[in-house]
Amino acid sequence: MKALVYNGPGQKDWVEKEKPGIQKPTDVIVKITKTTICGTDLHILKGDVPAVTPGRTLGHEGVGVVEEVGNAVVNFKPGDPVLISCVTSCGKCANCKRQLYAHCSDGGWILGHLIDGTQAEYVRIPHGDNSLYPIPEDADEEALVMLSDIMPTGLEIGVQYGRVKPGDTIAIVGAGPVGMSVLLTSQFYSPGRIIMVDMAPARLELAKQFGATDTVQVGSEDAVEKIMAMTDGNGVDVAIEAVGVPATFDICQKIVSAGGNIANVGVHGTPVELHIEELWIKNINISMGLVSTNTTPMLLKTLGAGKVDPGRLVTHRFALDKIIDAYEVFGNAAREKAMKVILNA
Amino acid sequence: MKALVYNGPGQKDWVEKEKPGIQKPTDVIVKITKTTICGTDLHILKGDVPAVTPGRTLGHEGVGVVEEVGNAVVNFKPGDPVLISCVTSCGKCANCKRQLYAHCSDGGWILGHLIDGTQAEYVRIPHGDNSLYPIPEDADEEALVMLSDIMPTGLEIGVQYGRVKPGDTIAIVGAGPVGMSVLLTSQFYSPGRIIMVDMAPARLELAKQFGATDTVQVGSEDAVEKIMAMTDGNGVDVAIEAVGVPATFDICQKIVSAGGNIANVGVHGTPVELHIEELWIKNINISMGLVSTNTTPMLLKTLGAGKVDPGRLVTHRFALDKIIDAYEVFGNAAREKAMKVILNA
Repeated sequence: MKALVYNGPGQKDWVEKEKPGIQKPTDVIVKITKTTICGTDLHILKGDVPAVTPGRTLGHEGVGVVEEVGNAVVNFKPGDPVLISCVTSCGKCANCKRQLYAHCSDGGWILGHLIDGTQAEYVRIPHGDNSLYPIPEDADEEALVMLSDIMPTGLEIGVQYGRVKPGDTIAIVGAGPVGMSVLLTSQFYSPGRIIMVDMAPARLELAKQFGATDTVQVGSEDAVEKIMAMTDGNGVDVAIEAVGVPATFDICQKIVSAGGNIANVGVHGTPVELHIEELWIKNINISMGLVSTNTTPMLLKTLGAGKVDPGRLVTHRFALDKIIDAYEVFGNAAREKAMKVILNA
Repeated sequence: MKALVYNGPGQKDWVEKEKPGIQKPTDVIVKITKTTICGTDLHILKGDVPAVTPGRTLGHEGVGVVEEVGNAVVNFKPGDPVLISCVTSCGKCANCKRQLYAHCSDGGWILGHLIDGTQAEYVRIPHGDNSLYPIPEDADEEALVMLSDIMPTGLEIGVQYGRVKPGDTIAIVGAGPVGMSVLLTSQFYSPGRIIMVDMAPARLELAKQFGATDTVQVGSEDAVEKIMAMTDGNGVDVAIEAVGVPATFDICQKIVSAGGNIANVGVHGTPVELHIEELWIKNINISMGLVSTNTTPMLLKTLGAGKVDPGRLVTHRFALDKIIDAYEVFGNAAREKAMKVILNA
């Protein structure tokens, strides 16, 4: 089969590789039908995630069809269409039993990280009964690919950890795919005002189409000053960080209101200065974490009921064997006006 | 009347001052029977709280007897024994209506800060109906003084914000009066293990008497290393910071487990370095805030039911007119083995 492999910093190749087989009775082999590229894959390619070793197949998102199942698998059989979760969970450890699948003792985020991932013709999914979800055959598969990672990340780490409530004023700092997922899923809880913050006018325009009530363009205006003015000096109920750099975290700590929440969704590579000398007295809460994908069943229901359309995040489509071209587009998202790219096998 | 006034950094005096009178219909004048000194008063005396201006009577804790009431006051009449809350609340603003009295638009922490406080023979309490609590005449008044500030601070900002649950392993970093209040009130929620961390062996000994299951003496042992070893490398469910300096906050961020909570109770004067590059993936929560005293009714019930005895925190007693001596003892708490001092009017 063919797969996209990481071959050290800056080096990726579309190569022939052995098709994966069942290693444990709980494994499921999935033939990929659609996959995508995540910002995390770009981080890996920069060499920022040293746990990823040369030769590793990248990718942790996708949908496909079951090819083969281990003899302990009960929920799936060959031919079943499935959604692949970016997080693998055994369902049996202490963390799985409290739905903290991100910290499963025999899983967590391992796909395209510690084991071969989904940017290939076939992928082996450990603990298939817990790490795959059945999907209706007529479902919008492009929308479903968004449910592998970015939609549950936005919902769990942005919206739920941030405790978004009906009527709240919220600010989402960063209008990339994850920030947009926060924007889409926050609307389940009916916030009164959604302020989207980004540098790119095109992304802010798209955010308005997706339900943002206000936009702030960093660079052309002072984000903190503008948001404080928009909220009568009070700040926002929930500030959601969806970039992963100190400057955007800093905006969040400056715009959160007394009694409010900062939900950090971004993946950070350096420490940040926490202004606890100003914040200790403000009764605020700061949350952060890796998605557990425990909201996937909820998201599948909202998708089925037409409450959300994550397929709108897809801007570009490629054949799977053109994945190197897709990386070129996704890696220059601003220039290409790209949000999510779909790869069709 | 006599009062303890702040006269600029390093300068306090026990002076003759005009007895306070009713200024607004919601005011209550209380004759102090018992008051105490808080770590915050020491901060003010160092000049760390510039909002406190020379001539200000210090103190935000105490019990007393109602002397006079404004004509809008309905809950109290002269002669009633009352508990004074450190936080003043109007009961009518948006924040009061969500029990966030710390951010009352016409109150919050103002006693001994923006208006004259309780280290005096008489004090004026604004919004008396909401800022005072009736107490039984035969109650243990020393225990009640602990309910003005430190007990609700420990309970709300340490235990409740930290989400302490039955069976949890918790660590309390700092065994001063507030850390001890966290220790006492955490036991309402039956944690399985309470690790108390401090530099002073005498305080750790007292913590054991108050219910700590384990103690770690900073200075003689590496707190982080020891706590990680005690928890099989997992860390604690809840790490509670009760000092207010970067070093103790840092211990907390190093010992919190995946899915855990850091509850900051300490008052900080400088920023801290938040290791978000390590913590973002751990699904943790960091809380902080000023006490709202919305748990005062709960604490009064636990006191009445014998579920807690905060009177045990009192180590020294003085006549109110010996308050300068009391400051000398409380200001050298380690040397004097002092926890809380009571001043009797």
